[in-house]
Amino acid sequence: MSAPHRLLGISGSLRTGAYSTAVLNAFMTASAAQGQWETADIGALPLFNQDLYVDPLPATVAAFRAQIALADGIVIVSPEYNHGIPGGLKNALDWASRPHNGSPLRGKPVLIITSSPGFTGGVRAQYQIRETVVSALARPVPTPEIVVGGVGSKIVDGRFDDQASIDFALGGLATMISEIVHGREQLRAPLAPR
Amino acid sequence: MSAPHRLLGISGSLRTGAYSTAVLNAFMTASAAQGQWETADIGALPLFNQDLYVDPLPATVAAFRAQIALADGIVIVSPEYNHGIPGGLKNALDWASRPHNGSPLRGKPVLIITSSPGFTGGVRAQYQIRETVVSALARPVPTPEIVVGGVGSKIVDGRFDDQASIDFALGGLATMISEIVHGREQLRAPLAPR
Amino acid sequence: MSAPHRLLGISGSLRTGAYSTAVLNAFMTASAAQGQWETADIGALPLFNQDLYVDPLPATVAAFRAQIALADGIVIVSPEYNHGIPGGLKNALDWASRPHNGSPLRGKPVLIITSSPGFTGGVRAQYQIRETVVSALARPVPTPEIVVGGVGSKIVDGRFDDQASIDFALGGLATMISEIVHGREQLRAPLAPR
Amino acid sequence: MSAPHRLLGISGSLRTGAYSTAVLNAFMTASAAQGQWETADIGALPLFNQDLYVDPLPATVAAFRAQIALADGIVIVSPEYNHGIPGGLKNALDWASRPHNGSPLRGKPVLIITSSPGFTGGVRAQYQIRETVVSALARPVPTPEIVVGGVGSKIVDGRFDDQASIDFALGGLATMISEIVHGREQLRAPLAPR
Repeated sequence: MSAPHRLLGISGSLRTGAYSTAVLNAFMTASAAQGQWETADIGALPLFNQDLYVDPLPATVAAFRAQIALADGIVIVSPEYNHGIPGGLKNALDWASRPHNGSPLRGKPVLIITSSPGFTGGVRAQYQIRETVVSALARPVPTPEIVVGGVGSKIVDGRFDDQASIDFALGGLATMISEIVHGREQLRAPLAPR
Repeated sequence: MSAPHRLLGISGSLRTGAYSTAVLNAFMTASAAQGQWETADIGALPLFNQDLYVDPLPATVAAFRAQIALADGIVIVSPEYNHGIPGGLKNALDWASRPHNGSPLRGKPVLIITSSPGFTGGVRAQYQIRETVVSALARPVPTPEIVVGGVGSKIVDGRFDDQASIDFALGGLATMISEIVHGREQLRAPLAPR
Repeated sequence: MSAPHRLLGISGSLRTGAYSTAVLNAFMTASAAQGQWETADIGALPLFNQDLYVDPLPATVAAFRAQIALADGIVIVSPEYNHGIPGGLKNALDWASRPHNGSPLRGKPVLIITSSPGFTGGVRAQYQIRETVVSALARPVPTPEIVVGGVGSKIVDGRFDDQASIDFALGGLATMISEIVHGREQLRAPLAPR
Repeated sequence: MSAPHRLLGISGSLRTGAYSTAVLNAFMTASAAQGQWETADIGALPLFNQDLYVDPLPATVAAFRAQIALADGIVIVSPEYNHGIPGGLKNALDWASRPHNGSPLRGKPVLIITSSPGFTGGVRAQYQIRETVVSALARPVPTPEIVVGGVGSKIVDGRFDDQASIDFALGGLATMISEIVHGREQLRAPLAPR
């Protein structure tokens, strides 16, 4: 049986060889049986500008929004910049969050993973990402925070190599898939005031 | 048929005649057919002190935790103090959140409503309450933020009298009940790493 | 006597005719006697990518960082996107914040103003901007929050026309200038551990 | 010459033998030559209730507010509870923050230190404390965040014994004292709109 769940992976870091991208890659490999993975290229997006939010959208924006619309669930792996969400990741979510009541993010389960070379593991980026996702009416997966501290020392030959973190994150994925499967009915329930 | 859902209402303000309490009362009245309501008295709790978190717990703490354990869902209505959660409400949630992986809050749907006399409606208290609830592995109800600005002018003879706000909040309650009904299976799914 | 203080204005919105830009313009006009104003064009910056943070920096990045380095104080006027800082503004601050202990932002007084068409005035963007600025070791000006709610209705013919808000913000500017004048000595004091 | 600066130490944890209290004690000892220290007993305060905010204030509240009013600077050492500020500490700051424009906290330099047994060092408590203090128009000391992770392993015989952390925190104290000394003039400058 082929994997039934379409999952979209987003790395919050744009550099080649980014730790977050390595964590995402390892996570996608470890869960290949559970989902059909695609990745987003948020580095191709222009800076959000309301003047560009017109028909037709910039091609990269339209493609990113289509990826989100088609996904059953979204996994974000991000570093922390300056005590918060990276500007590039926030920019991508700003593009994906419009219009407020009918954006492609609405109702989507989102699993959030942060990593940092330092000891805090990016927990402040984590709450800002969660707050952003809540604002867009997406659904942060109700799981213990998935946080990878000291990520630099867990990368071997460019690959993230910490099985304990991967296993912990897979617990979050299981919850996300449960939300996808059992939650379809709720997702259709009215979220807006009646 | 009697109302099947046990709901616990918590007001974040302790003063007699508090706006938040008035909002909670109006909300409970409007939804009496959908739940069996109880309210918590967080003003009776001592300040959290790890030395008191021993067997037997202080009686008021044990009673508050039992109320949470028995509830199918929790509704918090709170003001904002100093750009954030009131100390007394945070104190109550601190008592309810232990031990980390097995607290009575774990897995509980929580609907958050904030109100303020000012124009912001307590949105900063809202995100801090949400962050607290997420930390305790409870489940903030995925609904647009329910925020009541200018609450003072919407209280008539001590009663909250703004039908539009109540209707909007009832939309959140519908989502919470949907989560309670359809989500029981997920709630039993493992949240912790495997 | 010519105005002695070099001030840099940054609008957090990129669209032509942005409310935040209108507020910034009105503020610069009202305070023209107190500072020599320049504005930054954060829309010209690439998305932050560590691979680009090499010598030579992209020209727009180098120019933006030079503007900050030369400024005695910075004024940010920003909207709120998705309960937080606009991605484009965070992106700009991410570029300006490196290296951590020696960035051009270090020690700079920063005055933060948020505005929103809605009633909350962008207070959640405000705290995220403040947190970003603190992380970069800049100095948020210690002033009551400057927040403009319902900004759309206060724009007349493209110009921000709310004298009360401008006067309130000028109080913050006075505090910033006081910090600049009297604080030079502190700014040179060691901020790092000894 | 006797120490000229009156400093008030507040521990955010109430338990006997709290890590935060141990850190505060070690910090006070290390800086005894630089200030006259007093400590606050926030565990004696009632839960904030607007009905009690009348003349005469509860005796413990009046005493706490007087301590703040007399202090030249305040040092808070706090753990993190549930991703945020401990309820008891927020409760104390809620009592100290009124009335909004004329509270004893207004204009006071506040040095914030967080510690946690875990690796994150309480950085989320740190930003909530900072936000609370900003709201009360106090002045967080502009210093790199002072954060103690893994605090449990740094306590020996009940005493905090990590000289590197103490030295780092003393850098923050030096900045606070510089603010006290050089900043008196600014502190008297109008913070409110003119």
